[in-house]
Amino acid sequence: MSTRQDGRSGEDQLIDRFFRPIAKHPGALGLVDDAAFLTPPAGSDLVLTVDAVVVGVHFLADDPADSVAKKALRVNLSDLAAKGAKPLGALLSLSMPENTGDDWLAAFARGLGEDCAAFDCPLLGGDMTGTPGLLTISITAIGAVPTGRMVRRKGAQPGDVLVITGTIGDAVLGLKLRREPNNPAFARLNRTARALLADRYLLPQPRVALARSLHEHATAAVDISDGLAGDVGKLAAASGVAARIEAKRIPFSAPARTALSEEPNLVETMLGGGDDYEIAATVPENRLKALQAAGTESGIDVTAIGRIEAGEGVTVLGLDGQPLALKQASFSHF
Amino acid sequence: MSTRQDGRSGEDQLIDRFFRPIAKHPGALGLVDDAAFLTPPAGSDLVLTVDAVVVGVHFLADDPADSVAKKALRVNLSDLAAKGAKPLGALLSLSMPENTGDDWLAAFARGLGEDCAAFDCPLLGGDMTGTPGLLTISITAIGAVPTGRMVRRKGAQPGDVLVITGTIGDAVLGLKLRREPNNPAFARLNRTARALLADRYLLPQPRVALARSLHEHATAAVDISDGLAGDVGKLAAASGVAARIEAKRIPFSAPARTALSEEPNLVETMLGGGDDYEIAATVPENRLKALQAAGTESGIDVTAIGRIEAGEGVTVLGLDGQPLALKQASFSHF
Repeated sequence: MSTRQDGRSGEDQLIDRFFRPIAKHPGALGLVDDAAFLTPPAGSDLVLTVDAVVVGVHFLADDPADSVAKKALRVNLSDLAAKGAKPLGALLSLSMPENTGDDWLAAFARGLGEDCAAFDCPLLGGDMTGTPGLLTISITAIGAVPTGRMVRRKGAQPGDVLVITGTIGDAVLGLKLRREPNNPAFARLNRTARALLADRYLLPQPRVALARSLHEHATAAVDISDGLAGDVGKLAAASGVAARIEAKRIPFSAPARTALSEEPNLVETMLGGGDDYEIAATVPENRLKALQAAGTESGIDVTAIGRIEAGEGVTVLGLDGQPLALKQASFSHF
Repeated sequence: MSTRQDGRSGEDQLIDRFFRPIAKHPGALGLVDDAAFLTPPAGSDLVLTVDAVVVGVHFLADDPADSVAKKALRVNLSDLAAKGAKPLGALLSLSMPENTGDDWLAAFARGLGEDCAAFDCPLLGGDMTGTPGLLTISITAIGAVPTGRMVRRKGAQPGDVLVITGTIGDAVLGLKLRREPNNPAFARLNRTARALLADRYLLPQPRVALARSLHEHATAAVDISDGLAGDVGKLAAASGVAARIEAKRIPFSAPARTALSEEPNLVETMLGGGDDYEIAATVPENRLKALQAAGTESGIDVTAIGRIEAGEGVTVLGLDGQPLALKQASFSHF
């Protein structure tokens, strides 16, 4: 509780100082209404998603505040992108310990504002509360997709090609590198390579630019937040099909390949570790080129890594053509 | 992290067991997509709001799990109602400590399901994460209001009547009673009276049924979450007007009047303490009867407690006609 001479609460003053400047969209109503409004675009369905990030679970206590804000937004933008939806706006729910400094908040708001602008996803509103617990950031993102065109996890058909954007496993290696900088697997990585991996953990690259092509071409899609094998497994289960992934076709970054050559067992971590925020999608064979061309235009590699088949489950075929036995299919909090 | 034989994560299993059964709306997509869809009603603007509740801050650790869920939803429904919006759906973001038992989750989901049904606000999706911190529940609610008819805090005009729904101060007395059951102010309250106050803290009554009448008649509105004086102050500030409240016209419940007669200073707590989740609205004089009649139809008392005037700030006139000096206008976390 706090008493202020002007009758305005501490929350209002924090909102004034840090969040009002980045919430200029008319739907934010200047953040004075404790609610936002949105005129839905004609001919659209809305896609809604929420994800929370907690210090020590989804980000580290010493991560820069601006990148924490960006990650909290981007994990949601990644969900929208996988649905083929264009962002319309976001709501922030911020639970802050009392010792959260103004410097932290200023950097957090700056980062959030930068990404809201970069991804054309205006901050529409939110809620700020004190907590005796841990810093917890929950962002809700709203997107639009042409009516009836939302891309779901359900819809993959036997014969479809399984594709993946970008590269897999960098983020989990980046986290491992933060925790075990002297792990022999990383011995041959130079500073640039280490920075690339670290950055992939800190700052996911949501594939927003591919959303439109996904709702034009994909039969199903999922964003890889909990690990390639596990998330493709969810897509396969939702679609009632099997997915076969060829390990040799999975795109790895140069630093990841270097680490893998030192420690081949890392492949399991990389396929199950999560935080990639790439998109796995299924496309009919005759749409593959169009999707890849759209990716190229947006600077996003789209790589075919396998096939959808009748049946169930995910099989990852190793270099020898034999299925890998993955001990842990995906990340889970419980 | 957890490994399961069937490759499905612990989160998925918890969602299966507890939340899938209460998320039957088509927009929830069976909770398999990690995103929801919503076809916006034609001719509507959307209203979006988010509020987090944290154990020890917004509810007590020994509050029943079903009422915690209901409160978390209802504080958001209250925001929608104040905007004149009808609920369309909600998203749940749940951060749970590892020791949260299945019994708690089952009761939480049951309570949430009951209220989603009671208020016609389907659970559309959400996110569940483990936390080494405290139980934190953030709910996003989406509502619809006819295009251009959202009721804002801005819009009150000099001459408008200031009205309030229900009674004020019960919730903060209910909390005080939980904490200080032997406080002499409560000495004359019998069990029924005590239960009424306790219940008002545990379970806000969002005035959803009044939403339509508000967008038909009100010039401005705000829900009273942080205290009558403070929240009316926010409405006045947003509207660029002054509000004059007559203390003798503020509706208090019978138990509250009993407590007040023992301890008159409680009035300050009651006007500044928050958690009422009633709606303060401003209406032109010639719309007052229509709004009150609509309230009566919905079983909601709508009481005129003051006036909007030119100027700024909130004045609460005491029984002697002199302004009360309120030390704390409203609750703030910082």
